[in-house]
Amino acid sequence: MSRTAFFISDGTGITAETLGRSLLAQFEGVDLTLVVKPYIDTLEKAHDLAAIIAQTADRDGERPIVIDTIVDQSIRDIIAAAPGFKVDIFSTFLAPLEEELATHSTYTVGRTHAIGRDDVYMHRIDAVHFALDNDDGARTHQYDQADVILVGVSRCGKTPTSLYLALQFGIRAANYPLTEDDLDEDGVLNMPKALAPYRHKLFALTIDPRRLAAIRSERRPNSRYCSMDQCMQELQQAEALFRRYHIPYIDTTRFSIEEISTRMIAETHLTRRFSPR
Amino acid sequence: MSRTAFFISDGTGITAETLGRSLLAQFEGVDLTLVVKPYIDTLEKAHDLAAIIAQTADRDGERPIVIDTIVDQSIRDIIAAAPGFKVDIFSTFLAPLEEELATHSTYTVGRTHAIGRDDVYMHRIDAVHFALDNDDGARTHQYDQADVILVGVSRCGKTPTSLYLALQFGIRAANYPLTEDDLDEDGVLNMPKALAPYRHKLFALTIDPRRLAAIRSERRPNSRYCSMDQCMQELQQAEALFRRYHIPYIDTTRFSIEEISTRMIAETHLTRRFSPR
Repeated sequence: MSRTAFFISDGTGITAETLGRSLLAQFEGVDLTLVVKPYIDTLEKAHDLAAIIAQTADRDGERPIVIDTIVDQSIRDIIAAAPGFKVDIFSTFLAPLEEELATHSTYTVGRTHAIGRDDVYMHRIDAVHFALDNDDGARTHQYDQADVILVGVSRCGKTPTSLYLALQFGIRAANYPLTEDDLDEDGVLNMPKALAPYRHKLFALTIDPRRLAAIRSERRPNSRYCSMDQCMQELQQAEALFRRYHIPYIDTTRFSIEEISTRMIAETHLTRRFSPR
Repeated sequence: MSRTAFFISDGTGITAETLGRSLLAQFEGVDLTLVVKPYIDTLEKAHDLAAIIAQTADRDGERPIVIDTIVDQSIRDIIAAAPGFKVDIFSTFLAPLEEELATHSTYTVGRTHAIGRDDVYMHRIDAVHFALDNDDGARTHQYDQADVILVGVSRCGKTPTSLYLALQFGIRAANYPLTEDDLDEDGVLNMPKALAPYRHKLFALTIDPRRLAAIRSERRPNSRYCSMDQCMQELQQAEALFRRYHIPYIDTTRFSIEEISTRMIAETHLTRRFSPR
């Protein structure tokens, strides 16, 4: 029988879920069903949820794990009365922090996000549209405004990474695909002309050829484009270019987009323009 | 004098930073400088960071707040010896969870993310490319495959929201701009033909006209497009359409992209195809 874990919040639920998943990921062998309950911000919603927790305890035969970041005391009390094992994030850490900072916390609903901060919103929108305008080598005349230019073969992860960098950190990431257009007569990949003046902004992505072939065959099945031979050849040429020009690169095969992006920032000292949370 | 808070991790730092920001956001009046230190995964990096923490304590005249999710005990010991006020997330909650779950945690580095999970990666890539292909009404023949279709006037937040839904939750979000093309002779906005068969998938965004004018004037300064009159008129026509067809809508003015996306999921019971963390 599977046990259930609830991540409960009066806001987006991002903090409760992020911490909850990190904690529960440490219990590999335990079969858990994860349920996110954001915006529990009225007594009525709290009563409904308390009833669901009680039903879940009956069904599972064990009390659920309840991880919450609710602020309002009357809502907390209703959830606390339900049969769950509570991991109470805010009350655990806020009291010692109040003592250390010698002040009371404001402890206010929804204070966790950069709500309505115009500068943050503008940076995000701006960075997202920069990534879209400069996706896949579509334009090359704005590279002077780029914070970073991602290079790599088609479908190695450039587009999702540039969008993640834009949305999460406001970083202006262009991306440029390495193609046969930049091969010389000896089959050596040259530094593309559009990139040459911006070598210091380049960051490269590579990927396992089997993985690349699988991703490409979702897009164009049974094509030369998705064949193992083609994928291996393109990746060899690309990696030779990265080494020749000392372009830092990450193999995206083993990493999530979060990891690729945060490793890139750590390695290159890219500056985040904001932090959404 | 500002105090400093360090968010330290042997992985991406996302959990430490998310929780740390949520906790410290409750102390509105306290002037804090926030520093993220991900990938502290060797003894050498730990010693370097401990030295930085000590220097920061000297400079600030007060010990920094140290919020960490480091797993390795020898690395933890080095950080713990530095002069900081520790908020020790994992050790605080893992022991009680071990007792409740009657098992030992695996407590392994980097176990917090869906690393290398091919299905998750494929869903994300697929959803991101779906959002890009179906951005701004570019295509309308794939709406049968959309999980949701965002509608609203130009620059009300549709594109960043659809990309966030794709990256964070694997949701396939198309978006369609409401324009004068769909006005009838009385100046009433009609349901666009491409959307009519998919009314149940529509979710609308609106925005304060002043905010819209500001965003649009970044793009095309001094144009009719960014004038207050034009923005007000378009928004009135759009909101009349939403009400007439009972399309659920959110005013994006007050909300972050995280909030818009999570509220939309909560209100429509959209199903997340995966959860990256």
